[in-house]
Amino acid sequence: MAMRTRLTEAFGIRHPIVLAPMDPASGGALAAAVSAAGGLGLIGCGYGNRELLESEFAKAGNQRVGCGFITWSMANDPVLLDMALAHKPAAMMLSFADPAPFAEKVRAAGVPLICQVHSLEHARRALDAGADVLVAQGTDAGGHGLTTRGTITLVPSVVDMVARERPEVLVLAAGGIADGRGIAAALMLGADGALLGTRFWATQEALIHPSAKARVLAATGDETVRTSVYDIVRNRAWPAAYTGRLMRNRFIETWHGREDELRGLAAEEREKVEAADRSGDHDVSNVTVGEAIGLVRDLPPAGALVERLVAETAAQLASVSRTLSAA
Amino acid sequence: MAMRTRLTEAFGIRHPIVLAPMDPASGGALAAAVSAAGGLGLIGCGYGNRELLESEFAKAGNQRVGCGFITWSMANDPVLLDMALAHKPAAMMLSFADPAPFAEKVRAAGVPLICQVHSLEHARRALDAGADVLVAQGTDAGGHGLTTRGTITLVPSVVDMVARERPEVLVLAAGGIADGRGIAAALMLGADGALLGTRFWATQEALIHPSAKARVLAATGDETVRTSVYDIVRNRAWPAAYTGRLMRNRFIETWHGREDELRGLAAEEREKVEAADRSGDHDVSNVTVGEAIGLVRDLPPAGALVERLVAETAAQLASVSRTLSAA
Repeated sequence: MAMRTRLTEAFGIRHPIVLAPMDPASGGALAAAVSAAGGLGLIGCGYGNRELLESEFAKAGNQRVGCGFITWSMANDPVLLDMALAHKPAAMMLSFADPAPFAEKVRAAGVPLICQVHSLEHARRALDAGADVLVAQGTDAGGHGLTTRGTITLVPSVVDMVARERPEVLVLAAGGIADGRGIAAALMLGADGALLGTRFWATQEALIHPSAKARVLAATGDETVRTSVYDIVRNRAWPAAYTGRLMRNRFIETWHGREDELRGLAAEEREKVEAADRSGDHDVSNVTVGEAIGLVRDLPPAGALVERLVAETAAQLASVSRTLSAA
Repeated sequence: MAMRTRLTEAFGIRHPIVLAPMDPASGGALAAAVSAAGGLGLIGCGYGNRELLESEFAKAGNQRVGCGFITWSMANDPVLLDMALAHKPAAMMLSFADPAPFAEKVRAAGVPLICQVHSLEHARRALDAGADVLVAQGTDAGGHGLTTRGTITLVPSVVDMVARERPEVLVLAAGGIADGRGIAAALMLGADGALLGTRFWATQEALIHPSAKARVLAATGDETVRTSVYDIVRNRAWPAAYTGRLMRNRFIETWHGREDELRGLAAEEREKVEAADRSGDHDVSNVTVGEAIGLVRDLPPAGALVERLVAETAAQLASVSRTLSAA
């Protein structure tokens, strides 16, 4: 089975399913597994670490994968972009800060530029920078983002903007998509495909502590929250409008709403959080996932998951069409 | 053209499109127009006013319409429920507070009970109360709600809960749905239909000041925000977790984030807001709409809008299916 859209045509892939470049979950093995199954895998280079970038690209082997950076973090060590482009990635995804300063270099390397956008204002900026693909990501997503827009309205709004101004640009839906129903909905909203984070976070290959994965399996989607407490304790300088969506835990219950107090104690709390990262104590260490956790009930290998998502999507499209055509 | 789903079968309507019972937008004329066009119109009895209830039901004439209450507001004058049931409404929708204390009376009247839910916890409560239909409404919606869940994940999560526990219950998707793409997406997410607020707010029949409608036509979906400032100034006792999504204006820019100060000045600010309500000064008076405003570009009659939504939905389903089957 294959699902052809403008995305699959443009990237020469079989399914309109893209792995979000989550740092640290989306390592080379996960990205390669998604690409091997017919999707597009993106390695998460996130906060920017030269050694990790090289080792994760090495783990992807000969599979055609791309990668993604947190733009303002990568800007602290711009050589990272050259190092990544040297791998001839299938795509370069830039998230959060203005992509303009880096777009020319990506284009010059002949690499498709994917820009994550959280609002129409971001979409405008990405179109101006010459993006080839926009990822319209709603606040429903895990990890960092704005609260401005949810996926259900951001996707068609971005699709309309693109249709008016640069119709050759592709749009991916992201935020809260974790099964065939979500992918089918993304296509109905006008997207050319879907970018999935949380669903791939919960796979065998994801570089996530087993105890974090186990928590998510038992959770409902009511159990996430947007907060800045981990950015504060880890001393990561995100602009105030950006919060991270995470699964609620004891650390968040303790500190969310007491951010100023936490700032004063950050150094000693950081030690506790880093110890919890190592030991897998997710009452204290963060579990960075979106509202889609309520739709995640297993930890399959990523390749089998891609196959399942495609089958579910096709089945849902057929089922709804059948119901309506009976009218 | 007709679109048959479990919803259309259960209610004997032609299209799986329901008017949100917005107070004050959804009066008898709007509800009747939606029902006449083949959807299901619900009169917004919101904060509960006996005179308005009678006059709006009268305006609906012989059309089969339902109505909706803000449960805890109606509880201040429970006779309102008897008055509404005396009209033999097509459905009774209860929003926000626990529906259990009122469910028995609705059932005894033989009226289908629709419960609005903003989380899985709400969905559980509504199933326990014996709801016939759940409206899974994401934070993307206009008006009051929680920030817990977006439409894109809440709908399939509620669908899954219902399928496990009371599969005969119907599910409507709400929050951010304003065109055929959104309705098609709602069906893909597993809903039996969609409940639309903002899109019907922007129609000829909606009981909304023309200057408010005009503002929305020029806005993008980036221009709404969740805030409590109007509840504070109007002295409406909403629980803290409930905020209202509104279009940003000068009043919100002035007071959002300064809620304690506003509480101290509420009486004098209320006079200004009420004067602005009358004069149509929407720099000061509220414009209660959701993120879907970016998808709203005209003010059609509601009946023509229903026809358009059905045609768009069918076209989008056909277009996506055609693209994929070409693979």
